[in-house]
Amino acid sequence: MIGVIRVFTTEEEEILEQHGKVISECYGISTVNKCIPNQPLGIFNDETEKIAIPKIVELGKRLEQEGCKVITISCAADPAIEELRKEVAIPVIGAGSAAAHTALAIGQPVGILGITETAPSVINNLLGNLIVGYQQPEGVTNTTDLLTPTGKERGVEAVNKLIDQGAKVIVFACTGFSTIGLADLLRQELDVPIIDAVEAEGLFASTLYKQQASNA
Amino acid sequence: MIGVIRVFTTEEEEILEQHGKVISECYGISTVNKCIPNQPLGIFNDETEKIAIPKIVELGKRLEQEGCKVITISCAADPAIEELRKEVAIPVIGAGSAAAHTALAIGQPVGILGITETAPSVINNLLGNLIVGYQQPEGVTNTTDLLTPTGKERGVEAVNKLIDQGAKVIVFACTGFSTIGLADLLRQELDVPIIDAVEAEGLFASTLYKQQASNA
Repeated sequence: MIGVIRVFTTEEEEILEQHGKVISECYGISTVNKCIPNQPLGIFNDETEKIAIPKIVELGKRLEQEGCKVITISCAADPAIEELRKEVAIPVIGAGSAAAHTALAIGQPVGILGITETAPSVINNLLGNLIVGYQQPEGVTNTTDLLTPTGKERGVEAVNKLIDQGAKVIVFACTGFSTIGLADLLRQELDVPIIDAVEAEGLFASTLYKQQASNA
Repeated sequence: MIGVIRVFTTEEEEILEQHGKVISECYGISTVNKCIPNQPLGIFNDETEKIAIPKIVELGKRLEQEGCKVITISCAADPAIEELRKEVAIPVIGAGSAAAHTALAIGQPVGILGITETAPSVINNLLGNLIVGYQQPEGVTNTTDLLTPTGKERGVEAVNKLIDQGAKVIVFACTGFSTIGLADLLRQELDVPIIDAVEAEGLFASTLYKQQASNA
């Protein structure tokens, strides 16, 4: 199984398993999804990231002990990725770096779509000079806003702005886009590759999982 | 379809289609394979690379005209990749950069397995400080040498040396390893992720192809 770490706290199984479900549907591999304790609002600044790091590391170690062959840290900021990689023997994939490396393999100018003020630094640092723009859908400050017809329209508008800025590839800098199907919506309307961060973490995790499975 | 560019000349269909076959078997997508003219020995130095560049660009343009949705340059040195990207509107994936970005998404120390004196510079430049070693299987100067039982043993030995040097991930810096099944052999004997360059190009190409297909 692929272990999926969610970096906020929820009691609702359906919400907990949303990213794992995307991965299973795309790549046909089952996942186990776990969230960190006592952070219902997740990570939203340096302080909350610092508090989350040891929790992510503990969760990752537990997922390895429980038999996971690969772990994903399912957040575009890749929190605690280096710390966790030092503590487990299995591969650890971060949503942010996975999305960025997929874009880098395409090698064309990138437009980043996000909800926050700026993209996570892991994405900015990796993409560097390839970045031609960053956009937030107008009036959208959380992913539930995107669930409305107007919200989706704003998402398409924002991506069209990025294309006008020269983007040949779109990277989602927030995993919240993944659960509302924004990528598929955009793919129906636009011709540029859309890199969804959860799909990207799943792409690498599933290929590594299949390797492990073949020698089990 | 995925268009696969082979950077040497062959009249033998089976050889021409070897990489496409690996991609189709791994990802279930059909490929069209074409090779450049008048270079039976392929690319083996700066001069032969220079001669090959316009041929690769021409071939890529033809594959796009014939309806391919993604192109791979199926060589670990990524020859002509920037030139071709400027001339076509579809994504172009190189075997070398695809393998390197897959390793970078794992983020652990990398050992490189090759046949030539050194790894292609695209791989060395991308992996940079993550590289802990480079090895050639002893006595193996071409991929047919690897087809013998002794050759495969030498391959395993070379990878074990890389692991002793601290490698947690193995990257193949030659697409010749792909057609002889070395990755699967190593996966049966060893626990580290093995990144095969043709499988890596296929990983990105197939995910991009599926996107294009979904909006067709």
